[in-house]
Amino acid sequence: MKIVGRVFRPFLLLVALAGLLFGGAAQAQLPPIPAPPMPPFQLDAGHPLAQVIIPKLIPVLVRDVSPALNDVTLVPRVTNALLTAMVDALAPYHPTAVGIFTRFERRPQDEWTLENMNIASLYAAYHSLRGMLPQREAVWASMLTEHGLDPSAGDMDTTTPAGIGTAAGKGAVAARLHDGMNQTGGYADTTGYVPVNSAYELTDASRWQPAIKRTGMGSYSAQVFVTPQMANVEMWSDINPRDIRIPAPTASNPENWDAYKAQVDQILEASANLTDEQKMMSELFDNKIVALGFSFIHTAVQHQISPMAFARADWLTMGALQDAMVVTWQEKARYDAVRPFSAIAHVYGDELVSAWGGPGMGTMEIPASQWQSYIPVSEHPEYPSASTCSCAAHGQAARRYFGTDELGWSITYPAGSSRIEPGVTPAEDLTLTFDTWTDLEQMCGQSRVWAGVHFQAAVDASMEICHDFGDAMFEYFTALMDGTAPERGPAQALAPDPRKDDRGA
Amino acid sequence: MKIVGRVFRPFLLLVALAGLLFGGAAQAQLPPIPAPPMPPFQLDAGHPLAQVIIPKLIPVLVRDVSPALNDVTLVPRVTNALLTAMVDALAPYHPTAVGIFTRFERRPQDEWTLENMNIASLYAAYHSLRGMLPQREAVWASMLTEHGLDPSAGDMDTTTPAGIGTAAGKGAVAARLHDGMNQTGGYADTTGYVPVNSAYELTDASRWQPAIKRTGMGSYSAQVFVTPQMANVEMWSDINPRDIRIPAPTASNPENWDAYKAQVDQILEASANLTDEQKMMSELFDNKIVALGFSFIHTAVQHQISPMAFARADWLTMGALQDAMVVTWQEKARYDAVRPFSAIAHVYGDELVSAWGGPGMGTMEIPASQWQSYIPVSEHPEYPSASTCSCAAHGQAARRYFGTDELGWSITYPAGSSRIEPGVTPAEDLTLTFDTWTDLEQMCGQSRVWAGVHFQAAVDASMEICHDFGDAMFEYFTALMDGTAPERGPAQALAPDPRKDDRGA
Repeated sequence: MKIVGRVFRPFLLLVALAGLLFGGAAQAQLPPIPAPPMPPFQLDAGHPLAQVIIPKLIPVLVRDVSPALNDVTLVPRVTNALLTAMVDALAPYHPTAVGIFTRFERRPQDEWTLENMNIASLYAAYHSLRGMLPQREAVWASMLTEHGLDPSAGDMDTTTPAGIGTAAGKGAVAARLHDGMNQTGGYADTTGYVPVNSAYELTDASRWQPAIKRTGMGSYSAQVFVTPQMANVEMWSDINPRDIRIPAPTASNPENWDAYKAQVDQILEASANLTDEQKMMSELFDNKIVALGFSFIHTAVQHQISPMAFARADWLTMGALQDAMVVTWQEKARYDAVRPFSAIAHVYGDELVSAWGGPGMGTMEIPASQWQSYIPVSEHPEYPSASTCSCAAHGQAARRYFGTDELGWSITYPAGSSRIEPGVTPAEDLTLTFDTWTDLEQMCGQSRVWAGVHFQAAVDASMEICHDFGDAMFEYFTALMDGTAPERGPAQALAPDPRKDDRGA
Repeated sequence: MKIVGRVFRPFLLLVALAGLLFGGAAQAQLPPIPAPPMPPFQLDAGHPLAQVIIPKLIPVLVRDVSPALNDVTLVPRVTNALLTAMVDALAPYHPTAVGIFTRFERRPQDEWTLENMNIASLYAAYHSLRGMLPQREAVWASMLTEHGLDPSAGDMDTTTPAGIGTAAGKGAVAARLHDGMNQTGGYADTTGYVPVNSAYELTDASRWQPAIKRTGMGSYSAQVFVTPQMANVEMWSDINPRDIRIPAPTASNPENWDAYKAQVDQILEASANLTDEQKMMSELFDNKIVALGFSFIHTAVQHQISPMAFARADWLTMGALQDAMVVTWQEKARYDAVRPFSAIAHVYGDELVSAWGGPGMGTMEIPASQWQSYIPVSEHPEYPSASTCSCAAHGQAARRYFGTDELGWSITYPAGSSRIEPGVTPAEDLTLTFDTWTDLEQMCGQSRVWAGVHFQAAVDASMEICHDFGDAMFEYFTALMDGTAPERGPAQALAPDPRKDDRGA
């Protein structure tokens, strides 16, 4: 025994201390699922977003921004900064395009090489992403160093690709540093939002209640309305969000009891009858990177657009989404509407209801007070639906850009690949097909009812107005491409909505 | 361009979809810090806890239970189940020892080989850990398969090492399944605890207020008191927690304004004068695996105890900690005391105070309402100090087991290795030395005041009584080792403390 002891114990101490004290434990991870290798990127023949930037960005978004990639105010903020920088860095290599925030002297045509544009793009990505998520500097720097580029070489000589990308990247971050999102204050609320209900008691059954979520083996936390100040962020398009007011969600007012109960019953009905297809639709549209990012990538592949066109069109669609969320957050904050989980408990209390019983449990009789949505509910008030509005605005921008409603996108979920019911759902390989952007946005909206996170009225309200943000963004995009758009000054916070507490009826 | 397009875009779609849809994104991680290699484990000459179990367990604890390893009710529950299983599995290979929950016929002495005991230990670990954290089945199974053992071979033939380990592992989990912790209910609160203060407003300045914590780039959540029902968990020792009542924290009552302000001022004074040593002490003692686990490992190395003695002594010290937390939670729930961050804001509001200004900021003049503790505050009421009580109970158990107060443990933090101020603190390599368990527990307690998470009274109150749990646990341990301890039936929840709402004063 003692010999054994003398042999291994000093090792143990060394290993354990080194591992735990200096990052090992914090970084220790279970084995990742391997993904197919990415084809090698070449500066003169590659696609910076597809081959370099997106693969570096997604793991950071998952880890630092939105683990389920279902966020619609913070993830788009990062991608908007990135794509804004790329659009501005690419403008001088185009016959007519002008930058959004940063404008450079147009480069002579013999410099319009893919290599120059890719170098400018990568420096733009590096400086915009380090500006948004500085704690991941090493990841962003690797986008350059792995391709022979020197991160520190980004001088401000805006006649060189590196200089143009550097100036565009820094400019994109600086221009939105004070746009109302409180980036310099850690994105903390600047509107003074306080929920009227606590996570423990529903005192006003018409209003939002923070959900308590399990955050680990036995730890829980209560939701905090994410970035209420999104309602005060400067829009890209010339739409004034204060001109827009979505009708009040009258069915979410318990004084209209029959309507209140009817929309609760619709959610329970859907919950009790969830199909594998509805479950996977719900999961697909909760993940905005997949639902919107990959449908867009698919279309870009079909239309064989260049890496530069890809970056510009991606900026267009993500910009439409950002504008859509400004208005959506304005209305979410105004109505502060109750989510289904609270309303179901309010109507039925501990009465047994027939509903989805939790991961792998199928449909069961459960106390209404313990009902849970198939998709975990997001940390913001219910009305209107942000996902529906995101899909509608993004879809309309894509429709306008590609000039068609055709999409023809399919996605196959292998049996058991569900994140909510792993190993169980779908029972067999399942392919979801979207022939048109119209199909996509309708499924996107309806899936939020199946998922149990929205009432039908919130979906319908978003579907009603959110194409407008895609149209307005496309007008602005066109003006940037033909060079007629005026240069923008730094973005500024909007004054608070004077009607922000006026919920009408 | 089109050629480039045709070449890479299909790959892109494949990679992105495969990566994101089927786990890649969820599991995608930034590069881990490499740790030195572990010496190879041999069944007939190795140390199961040191070489196999702990290295597998820690990453799961970090990922699924307590990212900062600072939890004191859930992490110890997992380790208690593990060590209980090992103690019971090893008893039949000892001349006098008896099991805690599961008792087997003593094995003939010629079977008391390290190989048999290691096999029994690994099966005990496998079945106890899969019982506690079933979602990591693959990790636990690898503890066996990597050493040529078949996880499914754990029949219940309790004459074989595999059968003994299997029965002990399953028995350890089953025996505490209904011990008051609500394991079958996801460890959700069973006591109906509701904070009197919201995260947004301090309506009673004597009571606990959930803190709002940043959980990502711009997302926040509000704390929920972790496992209030820990107060109702069956103790290991014969101490009846209802016989214990810690004096009320009178200085945390604003009616005693001078005392209330004085203890607030002590925290501000410490915050404004933090040294690198105090910062690293605060970080060391926040991480219970390092502060208690590694100090124990160090002592075990010094005393050259066998792997079997290691498991038993680890169970003893962790059991003392678990008992200590039952009483600590009983008193935390009773007094529901205010944390320093709330009291500082209550006393000084937006007045400027001199204090630590946040990571890397040093001492600054900041509005008291924005003051933050050096270590993020834990999700439970302030009084008494759980960390102090953990260190005192654990230390006393170790003192009794090894028969000395001598410790002689040093730990060196390289310059910049701070988790709170990475790259900044400590300015130079810093070695912290603890000559005795007394030194360790005193620094452990005091560090909570430096860290800004406890008032002095909470530290003093815990130091006053928590040795008792180490002593009582050692008595029980001794009875188990000499075979005089009666067999335990399944653990049962304690009746709620009849005085649980009686805060005196």
